[in-house]
Amino acid sequence: MALKLKGVEYEYVEEDLKNKSPDLLKYNPIHKKVPLLLHNGKPILESLVILEYIDETWPGPAILPSDPYDRAMARFWAKFLDEKCWPAMRRACLSRGEEQEKANEEANEVVMFLENELKGNKLFWGDTIGLVDIAANLIGHWYGIFEEFNGIMQPPLITKDKFPNLCEWVDKYTNRSFVKENLPPKDKLAQLYMDRIQAAKAAAQ
Amino acid sequence: MALKLKGVEYEYVEEDLKNKSPDLLKYNPIHKKVPLLLHNGKPILESLVILEYIDETWPGPAILPSDPYDRAMARFWAKFLDEKCWPAMRRACLSRGEEQEKANEEANEVVMFLENELKGNKLFWGDTIGLVDIAANLIGHWYGIFEEFNGIMQPPLITKDKFPNLCEWVDKYTNRSFVKENLPPKDKLAQLYMDRIQAAKAAAQ
Repeated sequence: MALKLKGVEYEYVEEDLKNKSPDLLKYNPIHKKVPLLLHNGKPILESLVILEYIDETWPGPAILPSDPYDRAMARFWAKFLDEKCWPAMRRACLSRGEEQEKANEEANEVVMFLENELKGNKLFWGDTIGLVDIAANLIGHWYGIFEEFNGIMQPPLITKDKFPNLCEWVDKYTNRSFVKENLPPKDKLAQLYMDRIQAAKAAAQ
Repeated sequence: MALKLKGVEYEYVEEDLKNKSPDLLKYNPIHKKVPLLLHNGKPILESLVILEYIDETWPGPAILPSDPYDRAMARFWAKFLDEKCWPAMRRACLSRGEEQEKANEEANEVVMFLENELKGNKLFWGDTIGLVDIAANLIGHWYGIFEEFNGIMQPPLITKDKFPNLCEWVDKYTNRSFVKENLPPKDKLAQLYMDRIQAAKAAAQ
């Protein structure tokens, strides 16, 4: 999303995380994880570090605000999304039964901080796409997937009555044509989710 | 350390984490943790976010390099120190028995990435103090504490034969007069450590 925003041409290489490529192990021997940005033969690692690198390397729309305090707030919330919200929501989505109830409760508590921060739209940038929007991209997109495949998937964790501000952001963000054109296909992600649920069920038996 | 480096006057407020102050809960309701920097009445949270804020707000020696790739590397390693090294070392220091053996092994593995990166002194800045040095400050200082109180404390996790590059950095960093003058007193920290060990033992009984 950041590279598209800056108008940078790039090659996207899909990584099979069950069978990691020699390149992934070579360029990210510590975490062996994606995303990994390779630029001039040098690897840049960790989602938020990559976003700041892109912002500092290429001209085009700014991803971080210019004021130091606003930058600190954007960094804080992007980190919160990356390290607290997303893992909590992931646990809630992939667990079942009693474990899920507990995971749901925890995720609700974490996401509520985001919801409260969104009151008066302080957090996200509004008319431009910034660091926090991109970090929240996963939530916005998955919310849409859960809504669309509601019959075969668990009900969405994020509902309009509980999280009105967050849902408003999701609507606004994912309906922007620039964002819409550049999100991965929902059916492919839904299939991935169903596969994971099946694998988790099989492992539990 | 960053504020001292920039020559910024500040008031240091000690926080009793067993009895958190109303101010801490007010300004950091999400994590309820230190460090917290209060500037113009506004809180800045999370160690590395605070360091970047200080670098962007006050003139003086730069804490981050100027080249975008070097900045990305500094951010990656500071994050690694903050989120991987320090927690792993903490677990190794505070656990006992079988649990400690496992924690020691894990900490060794994590710290070895740092040791290898330090070959040829690529990682730390050398003659100036930067983001990675400040993030590694805890390791350097605690290493000295373990060495000094070796009789009453566990042997240091980081030894010169296993981690020669890291030990060289510790020596160089902690013996710099600017750093020496601004580190908290070793005996106070040693006492804190002994208290924690006692509390952990009492809880285990």
